[in-house]
Amino acid sequence: MTTPATPLRRAYVVGAGLIGTSVALALRSRGVDTYLTDANAAAARLAADLGAGRDEPPTETVDLAVVAVPPSAVPGVLVDLQGKGIARAYTDVASTKGYVLRRAAEAGADLTTYVGGHPMAGRERSGPAAARADLFEGRPWVLTPSETTTPEVLAVTEALLSMCGAVPVRMSPAEHDSTVALVSHAPHVLASLIAARFADAAPDAVALAGQGVRDVTRIAASDPGLWREILATNSGAVASVLETIAADLLSVIDELTKLSDPREPLTATVQRLAQANVGQARLPGKHGMAPAEYATISVVLPDRPGQLARLFSDAGEAGINIEDVRIEHSPGQPVGLVELAVQPHVAGSLVEVLRRRGWSVH
Amino acid sequence: MTTPATPLRRAYVVGAGLIGTSVALALRSRGVDTYLTDANAAAARLAADLGAGRDEPPTETVDLAVVAVPPSAVPGVLVDLQGKGIARAYTDVASTKGYVLRRAAEAGADLTTYVGGHPMAGRERSGPAAARADLFEGRPWVLTPSETTTPEVLAVTEALLSMCGAVPVRMSPAEHDSTVALVSHAPHVLASLIAARFADAAPDAVALAGQGVRDVTRIAASDPGLWREILATNSGAVASVLETIAADLLSVIDELTKLSDPREPLTATVQRLAQANVGQARLPGKHGMAPAEYATISVVLPDRPGQLARLFSDAGEAGINIEDVRIEHSPGQPVGLVELAVQPHVAGSLVEVLRRRGWSVH
Repeated sequence: MTTPATPLRRAYVVGAGLIGTSVALALRSRGVDTYLTDANAAAARLAADLGAGRDEPPTETVDLAVVAVPPSAVPGVLVDLQGKGIARAYTDVASTKGYVLRRAAEAGADLTTYVGGHPMAGRERSGPAAARADLFEGRPWVLTPSETTTPEVLAVTEALLSMCGAVPVRMSPAEHDSTVALVSHAPHVLASLIAARFADAAPDAVALAGQGVRDVTRIAASDPGLWREILATNSGAVASVLETIAADLLSVIDELTKLSDPREPLTATVQRLAQANVGQARLPGKHGMAPAEYATISVVLPDRPGQLARLFSDAGEAGINIEDVRIEHSPGQPVGLVELAVQPHVAGSLVEVLRRRGWSVH
Repeated sequence: MTTPATPLRRAYVVGAGLIGTSVALALRSRGVDTYLTDANAAAARLAADLGAGRDEPPTETVDLAVVAVPPSAVPGVLVDLQGKGIARAYTDVASTKGYVLRRAAEAGADLTTYVGGHPMAGRERSGPAAARADLFEGRPWVLTPSETTTPEVLAVTEALLSMCGAVPVRMSPAEHDSTVALVSHAPHVLASLIAARFADAAPDAVALAGQGVRDVTRIAASDPGLWREILATNSGAVASVLETIAADLLSVIDELTKLSDPREPLTATVQRLAQANVGQARLPGKHGMAPAEYATISVVLPDRPGQLARLFSDAGEAGINIEDVRIEHSPGQPVGLVELAVQPHVAGSLVEVLRRRGWSVH
């Protein structure tokens, strides 16, 4: 599978968690000779069974070592690996970069052979069983080279990103840390604070929760131990974003508390709601496009086997590519609703085809 | 379609927005003679074109009038309709109930023929075009009868809920308002405050946003005008929930700001993250079940027409009912990943069947 031009033929992944195992699976799928270990030998064995490579350290120098351990453990592992001369180049996948670089420098790491990295991909589930070779496909992967990182080390790390199908993004460690505080770490804290309210809420109250709050709190299912590390190693940037949001929150509370007549304008609150519309619309869509770029068609679906096959077969015969699907149905109801996302220019003909074939289309 | 035993044969819906039109569509689908008007005549006409009934007021007394206007307009409309003797029973669908009841009493409404209601269903999209007859299927619908509401009025309103496929829940107005503040209004404010941060953020920062924060902020796409009303008419209960969350948030900020070593335990923060795990797991799933009740199977899908049809046909021939589907793929990538949710006891055979037919299944 590899060619002489590929600088990445042999790799060593340290840490068989979700990210490490997914990296190893992607490397293996591109024919890279991959070694993978973990402090927990059973995790590495499971990863190996899933096809992530050999669960042992390499016996010869590899092209790249990927340090896929929690942020606070990265500097120690990096210095240890470099001391053994285990690889020509080193990278990590920790969610915070300034801290890792500072501590690595303090610990005496060789910064010429190291480039910090952070793949912007993840799941609520953790561990090797949740890993996927395609976890990084189409996702940004930030690299934070220092001034001393050599071009060769950067090149072999970029080969890793390419093999994973990731989109390389280059930033300084500080820029990376403030950005992920904004788009990931602070939202994670707030989603968790909302979800925490439901831990002791009355069952009757929780029963009224709908899809909206379920989406808001989905990421709150993540591992508290890992998130303690992420927040602790990016505490300044996260606190800074949270302070801005806390100021907004206090102004909303103040306005609501002082309200004497429900017809009052709630100026500060409404301004934030309007800004939220703008901000929400700017987020990249599931496919890296704005959500508005797809048209959505709703089809009523009898809740029995074979109906989805019939629907997709009917859509497929019209030569139309379905970009996304969502099924909504309720327990005990005889029908569900399928939402099909398609390119806008084919939406009209899909509706026509499906109607002609007897589907109830909205 | 109706039988003599049904107390609801003729209905009048005032307000042709998402909720009003969806109610009218559900009533029409059950054969109820339905009238529907809106201050905006074009909205009512569109709703009528979609099959929501006749866009004119009824000429005879109807069994039930459904007031589907913004919360602050409910009391005035209710008193007006009652003055005209337009219905035997009256209900509304406003998201706040204590305010509506108080103002209706002040405005001289007849509380014997009125029962407050709130269907716990909605979408980010608004207006009659977004309406669906099945919007309320399987969803809770809170009724807040006062002491003076007659049993006959309650019965005809419960017939409405039954026709909509909703799950009736009875609460006091105050209990309803504090519950929706917790599970809907406060989360809406917080999701909006997060999304508002992206209105002016650098494009490079927004580009790093992933599925997690997209889910967190999805509901922030809603109409600020409607939400001003909801928050203004439930200000006390919403402020109370937000104050609790603000206190948690300030304690997290305090802990992060004071951190001197990333190995410190962040006790208060981690406690909230752990509570969030518990709270998140308590939320009812998409189908009214815990998400864990389904098994998820991931299948690699070539990104070209016909593949979904082939997949569902293969699954269908095995007689397996797919409960939910999610497609993930990245622009420019030749493959996507389809996640199929199925009853756990059939997951094994589905994997086997699909593998035998050449699918790459995870």
